[in-house]
Amino acid sequence: MSILPRRFERIKSVLDCRMKNLTVLVEDVNKPHNLSAILRTCDAAGVFEANFISKTNAVKTFNSTAQGSQKWVKLNNHENTITAISDLKNKGFKLYGTTLNSESVDYRNFDYSQNTCFVLGAEKWGLSNELKSMVDQSIFIPMRGMVQSLNVSVAASILLFEAVRQRKNKGILPANGEGLNMDEYQKTLFEWCYP
Amino acid sequence: MSILPRRFERIKSVLDCRMKNLTVLVEDVNKPHNLSAILRTCDAAGVFEANFISKTNAVKTFNSTAQGSQKWVKLNNHENTITAISDLKNKGFKLYGTTLNSESVDYRNFDYSQNTCFVLGAEKWGLSNELKSMVDQSIFIPMRGMVQSLNVSVAASILLFEAVRQRKNKGILPANGEGLNMDEYQKTLFEWCYP
Ligand SMILES: C[S@@+](CC[C@H](N)C(=O)[O-])C[C@H]1O[C@@H](n2cnc3c(N)ncnc32)[C@H](O)[C@@H]1O
Ligand SMILES: C[S@@+](CC[C@H](N)C(=O)[O-])C[C@H]1O[C@@H](n2cnc3c(N)ncnc32)[C@H](O)[C@@H]1O
Repeated sequence: MSILPRRFERIKSVLDCRMKNLTVLVEDVNKPHNLSAILRTCDAAGVFEANFISKTNAVKTFNSTAQGSQKWVKLNNHENTITAISDLKNKGFKLYGTTLNSESVDYRNFDYSQNTCFVLGAEKWGLSNELKSMVDQSIFIPMRGMVQSLNVSVAASILLFEAVRQRKNKGILPANGEGLNMDEYQKTLFEWCYP
Repeated sequence: MSILPRRFERIKSVLDCRMKNLTVLVEDVNKPHNLSAILRTCDAAGVFEANFISKTNAVKTFNSTAQGSQKWVKLNNHENTITAISDLKNKGFKLYGTTLNSESVDYRNFDYSQNTCFVLGAEKWGLSNELKSMVDQSIFIPMRGMVQSLNVSVAASILLFEAVRQRKNKGILPANGEGLNMDEYQKTLFEWCYP
């Protein structure tokens, strides 16, 4: 099996921009078009791996909105909240929970240039109380309208692209593979080229 | 017919934040969940009026993703590209077309604090050539992934919230109705309170 040089260059250039230190943790979002839009945005922002908690154990389904991005962003499925949180904290992530309550702080007040995980909740109920109590910081995107909240994939993209904007301003967006460790880089390059 | 004081205060506070000088022009986007997410984001960002061109003349349908935002953002339906563009230019808008071609410039390079209209295109084809040739400036959101483009509602929200961020930094986000003229304000307040 061989791969065309142009295709190889394209795959490599995308992997060169991937970041391990920017991710999302998505709780109980199951609508295919929301999941799909989140993954597509992760791909575009350069997220290496996205995290999901799905209590129903339903298989995640993606639709055309994803445009195949589920092949290019690793999906880390967590069985429950506790294991998800401890895994992410062990990896050194700061968890920013998105909530619309009174302790929550305007998202523009934080620096997302280090290990950052945005925690996103379900359309109807938002984050579970369990998860709310375990995040490091609650943040929200200020709302100026009649509707109380944003669509979850929209919220995800505003936050992820704010992180990208900040990292770009600091000159720390990876462009040569420095966002991954060598082993991971090699392993993923192989998997992406020979799926 | 009367309205509860609390409801009146809420409606008034949202209208106080509305801006006439920030809008979108959406060409041939017909999927209900995309239209719905765009309107919901317009509502959240404080857009007073959103513009649409729909060559098929199809009635716009919204689904639960909109969360009723279609009641709070005025929909300006244009019959064709020419009339849409001349209307918006007459109103003093600078038109930022979103395209992924080589003349397009990183969206972070512009100041969106004055009359700004983001022009957005359809999922499959993007902006028509006609529309591309008539915008003032082509912009794009830099993509770091394998998928070539973002979902249209995601692109809209990144751009609108960048405009809000810039206006916030400059201290020019309206909070007391100064984003509308007096007549419009009064008329809309009445319509929103007594639909
Ligand atoms: C539709 S909202 C959930 C609304 C729910 N009623 C609540 O009060 O949390 C779905 C998810 O989108 C994200 N979200 C929506 N609006 C947001 C905002 N203004 N700021 C931050 N995140 C938001 C959050 O992750 C939220 O859990
Ligand atoms: C799925 S895209 C269209 C893709 C189409 N193949 C093209 O080349 O334009 C649908 C719309 O989303 C917006 N969009 C998507 N990705 C974008 C990006 N990176 N920058 C700016 N706008 C984008 C544009 O308005 C575009 O017309």
